[in-house]
Amino acid sequence: MSRKWVYLFHEGSAKQKSLLGGKGANLAEMTNAGLPVPPGFTITTEACNQYYQDGRVISDEIIEQMKKSLNVLEEKTGKQFGNPDNPLLVSVRSGAVFSMPGMMDTVLNLGLNDETVSGLARLTNNPRFAYDSYRRFIQMFGDVVMGVEHYHFEKIIQAKKAQRGVKSDPELTAEDWQDVITKFKAVIFQQTQTAFSESPIEQLLQAVTAVFRSWHNHRAKIYRNIHKIPDHLGTAVNVQLMVFGNMGDDCGTGVAFTRNPSTGENYLYGEFLLNAQGEDVVAGVRTPEPIAQLAEKMPDIFEQFQQIAQKLELHYLDMQDIEFTVERGTLYILQTRNGKRTAEAAVKIAVDMVGESFINKEEAILRIDPDQLDQLLHPRLDPDAKLEVVTKGLPASPGAASGEIVFHADDAEKLAGKGKAVILVRPETTPEDIHGILAAKGILTSRGGMTSHAAVVARGMGKACICGCEQLKIDLRSKEVKVGGYVFHEGDLITIDGSTGRVIQGKVPLIDPVLSPEFTELLSWADEIRKMKVRTNADNPEDSRKAREFGAEGIGLCRTEHMFMELNRIPIVQKMILAETGDERNEALAELLPMQREDFVGILEAMDGLPVNIRLLDPPLHEFLPNLEELLVELTKLQMTPDADRLEMIRKEALIRKVRALQEFNPMLGHRGCRLGLIYPEIYAMQTQAIFEAAIDCLQRNVPVEIEIMIPLVGHVKELTEMRRLVEQIGSEIEKSSGLKIPYTVGTMIEVPRAALTADQIAEEADFFSFGTNDLTQTTFGFSRDDAEGKFLHAYVDNKILPENPFVSIDLDGVGKLIEMGVTLGREKKADLKTGICGEHGGEKRSIEFCHKIGLDYVSCSPFRVPLARLSAAQAVIKQENK
Amino acid sequence: MSRKWVYLFHEGSAKQKSLLGGKGANLAEMTNAGLPVPPGFTITTEACNQYYQDGRVISDEIIEQMKKSLNVLEEKTGKQFGNPDNPLLVSVRSGAVFSMPGMMDTVLNLGLNDETVSGLARLTNNPRFAYDSYRRFIQMFGDVVMGVEHYHFEKIIQAKKAQRGVKSDPELTAEDWQDVITKFKAVIFQQTQTAFSESPIEQLLQAVTAVFRSWHNHRAKIYRNIHKIPDHLGTAVNVQLMVFGNMGDDCGTGVAFTRNPSTGENYLYGEFLLNAQGEDVVAGVRTPEPIAQLAEKMPDIFEQFQQIAQKLELHYLDMQDIEFTVERGTLYILQTRNGKRTAEAAVKIAVDMVGESFINKEEAILRIDPDQLDQLLHPRLDPDAKLEVVTKGLPASPGAASGEIVFHADDAEKLAGKGKAVILVRPETTPEDIHGILAAKGILTSRGGMTSHAAVVARGMGKACICGCEQLKIDLRSKEVKVGGYVFHEGDLITIDGSTGRVIQGKVPLIDPVLSPEFTELLSWADEIRKMKVRTNADNPEDSRKAREFGAEGIGLCRTEHMFMELNRIPIVQKMILAETGDERNEALAELLPMQREDFVGILEAMDGLPVNIRLLDPPLHEFLPNLEELLVELTKLQMTPDADRLEMIRKEALIRKVRALQEFNPMLGHRGCRLGLIYPEIYAMQTQAIFEAAIDCLQRNVPVEIEIMIPLVGHVKELTEMRRLVEQIGSEIEKSSGLKIPYTVGTMIEVPRAALTADQIAEEADFFSFGTNDLTQTTFGFSRDDAEGKFLHAYVDNKILPENPFVSIDLDGVGKLIEMGVTLGREKKADLKTGICGEHGGEKRSIEFCHKIGLDYVSCSPFRVPLARLSAAQAVIKQENK
Repeated sequence: MSRKWVYLFHEGSAKQKSLLGGKGANLAEMTNAGLPVPPGFTITTEACNQYYQDGRVISDEIIEQMKKSLNVLEEKTGKQFGNPDNPLLVSVRSGAVFSMPGMMDTVLNLGLNDETVSGLARLTNNPRFAYDSYRRFIQMFGDVVMGVEHYHFEKIIQAKKAQRGVKSDPELTAEDWQDVITKFKAVIFQQTQTAFSESPIEQLLQAVTAVFRSWHNHRAKIYRNIHKIPDHLGTAVNVQLMVFGNMGDDCGTGVAFTRNPSTGENYLYGEFLLNAQGEDVVAGVRTPEPIAQLAEKMPDIFEQFQQIAQKLELHYLDMQDIEFTVERGTLYILQTRNGKRTAEAAVKIAVDMVGESFINKEEAILRIDPDQLDQLLHPRLDPDAKLEVVTKGLPASPGAASGEIVFHADDAEKLAGKGKAVILVRPETTPEDIHGILAAKGILTSRGGMTSHAAVVARGMGKACICGCEQLKIDLRSKEVKVGGYVFHEGDLITIDGSTGRVIQGKVPLIDPVLSPEFTELLSWADEIRKMKVRTNADNPEDSRKAREFGAEGIGLCRTEHMFMELNRIPIVQKMILAETGDERNEALAELLPMQREDFVGILEAMDGLPVNIRLLDPPLHEFLPNLEELLVELTKLQMTPDADRLEMIRKEALIRKVRALQEFNPMLGHRGCRLGLIYPEIYAMQTQAIFEAAIDCLQRNVPVEIEIMIPLVGHVKELTEMRRLVEQIGSEIEKSSGLKIPYTVGTMIEVPRAALTADQIAEEADFFSFGTNDLTQTTFGFSRDDAEGKFLHAYVDNKILPENPFVSIDLDGVGKLIEMGVTLGREKKADLKTGICGEHGGEKRSIEFCHKIGLDYVSCSPFRVPLARLSAAQAVIKQENK
Repeated sequence: MSRKWVYLFHEGSAKQKSLLGGKGANLAEMTNAGLPVPPGFTITTEACNQYYQDGRVISDEIIEQMKKSLNVLEEKTGKQFGNPDNPLLVSVRSGAVFSMPGMMDTVLNLGLNDETVSGLARLTNNPRFAYDSYRRFIQMFGDVVMGVEHYHFEKIIQAKKAQRGVKSDPELTAEDWQDVITKFKAVIFQQTQTAFSESPIEQLLQAVTAVFRSWHNHRAKIYRNIHKIPDHLGTAVNVQLMVFGNMGDDCGTGVAFTRNPSTGENYLYGEFLLNAQGEDVVAGVRTPEPIAQLAEKMPDIFEQFQQIAQKLELHYLDMQDIEFTVERGTLYILQTRNGKRTAEAAVKIAVDMVGESFINKEEAILRIDPDQLDQLLHPRLDPDAKLEVVTKGLPASPGAASGEIVFHADDAEKLAGKGKAVILVRPETTPEDIHGILAAKGILTSRGGMTSHAAVVARGMGKACICGCEQLKIDLRSKEVKVGGYVFHEGDLITIDGSTGRVIQGKVPLIDPVLSPEFTELLSWADEIRKMKVRTNADNPEDSRKAREFGAEGIGLCRTEHMFMELNRIPIVQKMILAETGDERNEALAELLPMQREDFVGILEAMDGLPVNIRLLDPPLHEFLPNLEELLVELTKLQMTPDADRLEMIRKEALIRKVRALQEFNPMLGHRGCRLGLIYPEIYAMQTQAIFEAAIDCLQRNVPVEIEIMIPLVGHVKELTEMRRLVEQIGSEIEKSSGLKIPYTVGTMIEVPRAALTADQIAEEADFFSFGTNDLTQTTFGFSRDDAEGKFLHAYVDNKILPENPFVSIDLDGVGKLIEMGVTLGREKKADLKTGICGEHGGEKRSIEFCHKIGLDYVSCSPFRVPLARLSAAQAVIKQENK
């Protein structure tokens, strides 16, 4: 049975996105909506998959259907492939289901050869245009289809310009281009041992194959990895009649958004270039003019375009990103798609569209990708900072970033891997730079506009980006950039402000973001809808306050070990650990008690009666002691020194013995958590006392408190029984001596598999469960995060052994199953058991959706992720209802 | 409502063991069977629990019932408490549900005071006996009831003997004892500030309280811990009319077993002492005569006793351990219970009793505690070894052991904790030495017979033991022992042969045990019954052969890392790991290949067609590299040496860098198992090639093979998919080049929770699952065994946080639940999935029972535990059927 592999544009519709790809479906939709779309056809994604299934061969059946559609196209346009009198020229573009800008290859002007080019020259009466088009075609075809590297062609053009003593391409004549074309063909043959094909149908087949092939090229894979796009979708190919924006000054090409993609403001926003092809705009080689200028230069076209833009937005009920070309005064719409936008714009557009009655609140909430919100919650430049602004470029992606200058993507990746903040500075970026953009804090380019590669990608990733900063003189070889009187070298610190386009010398202090009114409104809608509470992980008053500003409804995890690590406390903590007698230990603990109490008073005050979940000491004690390796080296040095202080040596040896005694083979699985509390109950007793005394202090000043005492790392119910008894004993003593009732509960973290597996038993002693998904992931997989991420986890994700890093998004099949089991078993035994999550997953959208699905009471995450979690929790409700 | 707290012997029965304790139930049973049992009554275990519940107070109701029973006893005997004319004297003994020899305290002759003693003297016409009895009573009462240490009394007796110039107790007169009694009372008051009570009823209440209290004394707790006896059972107290074996030469006392408890041979076996109380036999202070001598000394009594012994064995259908006393020519049976026995005896008795139609085969199998079998499978002295026998004692517990001499239980524990093999050498042992016996490889005493404390306890534990080796002159203070011309000091090596009683100088080579015919028969019955196969863990031909002799039906786990560790290979392995280039690595692997192949050829030959499960490399690579700390110290020394070899320093620095790069925070959760195979496929490829080439080598010589290739540490099905592909690719290449088909399957270890949780997914790629319960226990609990056992696990077990060490017996609630889930999910997807267990639990009886219950196909354990596993697997079937 034969399948339909090829669809003429009018045969498709927007609903067939998975078959025709995003671009193809839109072209069909626009064609059927009566928009001026150049005719063409789409080869389906199924054909792409079939190509791989057949061992990278396009089947005869598919070729047959392509040829048939080509015939229809020839009839419709009156042009023919290879006919010098009226040659049909087409563009060949990839079109995946999800937009992958810059990832897939495109070929324009296909159908040109030595014969048809002369026909084109005749028909347009413009030989220069024809030969220029021809050489562009050969260049692109040679590059993306035949794999000849770009610089071979550039070298030939540079040589020609030098020979002719001109500076820019337009100065070259038709004859010049003819000469270039000959050389282009020669270089192709030299590089590939294959001649450039003069047969248009052969060209078409090669180009389609190249598009199919590009689905599996390196940068496409990376992009899919980042954006979680499955490999099996495949790409469609769109073959479309060429229209020319570069036939003269009554021609042009441009890209426009129906609203401002940076701010979300509702006006036509974009750029155009007269006498240019679309590639010139996107590639950022020439800096285009704002779209508003089109109203002056081509008022009719502008008017027509504005109407089409409005129509498209209404049609798709979303902000559109539209590519257009004007060929000799006729407007063609080449493409429309939902426009990529900054988080700020996304929020504003969604909220505005509710106001405009385009969409409802639920839809507005679903429109925002919580991951993207991160950028709104990132620090901005301190307005009070004295700035040494060295230049200004286009504000391509908002947010501020400071870092060391790097000039190459590889260097960016390398330094970021070492924990350095870097700013990637390039003349322009290409899809090959994607790993460097990913690694950098910000991107700065000297060329390209708001829709250039760097700008689009950076906005997608929420990175600060400045484009088209033309005053920069970048020398990639000597790794320096000059601007005005300044010279910066690799490693020098700069700051970029992607919201204003300012480039600033040195590192600038950043301040916390404030939520926009639209964002606040959107979050208030989310709050109405969501079922789960959102808490924060915080262990000091400042973070607690910040989190409340962002809407946190309590503290889900207050770690007490950070309090032990403070500089003035660590000697006391060490004294406690190294104590030889119980008295010594208690003395040290008595010193720590008032400090801990003050910590808790501050946090309880900041939370003002919201629940505060405090986890008793968790890490193994050796974390608070000096490093063994260093001690050994120091001791050896002493031993090798003739007149070394013998007392010092003895002291060091004793310390080494103690450190060694506490050392562990696998600290992650060692003597920590409640295992500490059981062996050294005096430590937990001190902490509990500090908490309860802090509570009494607050209550006496009429500051309300709600305390949850969390016992970490429980694996067997009896661990909790013992520790609960300790807490309750101290609680009742302090309640008795103060005469006040402390509102507190006792529960546990579920962070080892056994706890989840025996949750019914544990629930009998627990008032709440908090799922510690970091450790639960470690133990369920048997992965030490510290080791895995450096040694094999990245390779696992890259090679698709794991669908994604389980420390980022909850592994549903394994860890998720355990969590669900824990909740179900726990609630069977205790219906009102409070449940929450406090691992890093508590701030990740898919994990939050999962938490909602299994009915947790709350999620807890870092302060800056609280708004994201509020939104995600609402989305989870809407998605569930929509099912 | 009032409860019955006290039972006269005739009111009870053997069925009321949990209420009356083992001893009480037996006394009731014997009384009702018409045996000559001195009358008395039992205070129930419920009364003991009530005592603790009431805050360590005996309630009035219980006291009331005791007094009533006492009245009955007075009526029955015509004697009265405190009546100088005809005083009632009783023994007070503990009697727990499970026999706990030597663990609980006993008081004899209760009822004596300054008045009744003179009555007793009159009645017996033997003042010396009366005052000796009185002083014994005060001594025992002072010790176990009032807590005055034993040596206070011994000192007084020694002084008296010195004063009177005599050597032994019998030489002291009635007057001497009267003097001793006065001094005893004084020392009691001096030590306790409390007078010895002259009131018999007060004495009784104090003694009963002491028995109750002793349920929670230190050594009772240790015993219960070792033998897994629950704390809540409590102990009963038996109050029984005293009969006297020490009234003269027509009196005596003894202990006998109905069969030999060492060998199982069917004849009356035991010891007696004329003119002595029972304590003299058990305590081992005087060395008694064999029971056979009784036939000469008291022929009628011997005849009567033999008949009673046979009757009791038939009644209880098991070998009995009987205590008896002869008072002035009358035989009394004081106690009977199932006799403790060596494993050898247990097996022989069980098999014999099947032959005698006492019990059936199933019952015989259930009679053997698999844990005990260990001792049968322990090494014996090499018969060809030249032995320097220094002396001979009683062969109290079979098996041989070599070790360093220690003289104190604490030292035994300390040195054993450091991994030393020790022999505990003592004049005699007491219940206080139990931790030392537990720690020692063997026990050697100079006093006491086959039923002395050391002998009974050692047999129960399966330790080699020699008793009553009277030639030994042990000096505990100077820590030396002299015998003949030899002097041994602490730390000197000796060997004891508990089967013959020989004490041998130095360390003697040991040889492997051979199974007795009875044992072989019992195991053949077990084999008929059991459903699970029993395999062995072995990674060399020798162990493989040994395991087959013990009945192993295949290899369940062949670890390949031990092969890498061999001395001549480690440099090549290090070269492989430190390789800078792929070529270097492949070169090292090529060197390892033929070695690995030879390993596998040997193992496959040994197993001769039985399944051999080979696990590919599992441990992290840094385990094969030098120790980082040592390297750092060496480097520092070089750096501090003025003329150090600079090249050596550079080499060392490079090595440190590499070791550091491979170092891990948590190696247990790090880059190991299939994670190695995925990142360095060339290692697994080499191993697979070696396995398959070995298989071909065997097949070509008509040696059949059945290979299971096991991929370790799989957590996600895709890990297995990838590794399976690698194995199959190499397999098909080797099959093609050899023209032979290799019978092999590919499967995985289930050893991280995620594997069990997603077993349905993993089963799609696995032919078998082998549960690696060591690692699964580590990850499920979040315990690192290396750290936990040293740092907190013992405290956890001691304090009952955990019921037992989960690395010894599978934790059913947590780890067991995961295993069951893994089996169920796996079989849902693949009905014929082969399942087994290869952790250490595979040789532990309760774990084996669990494995049977959930339907595993096999268990695998170390070679020496194979017979144990065969028996356990059969017991599991019988227990399930009996339910």
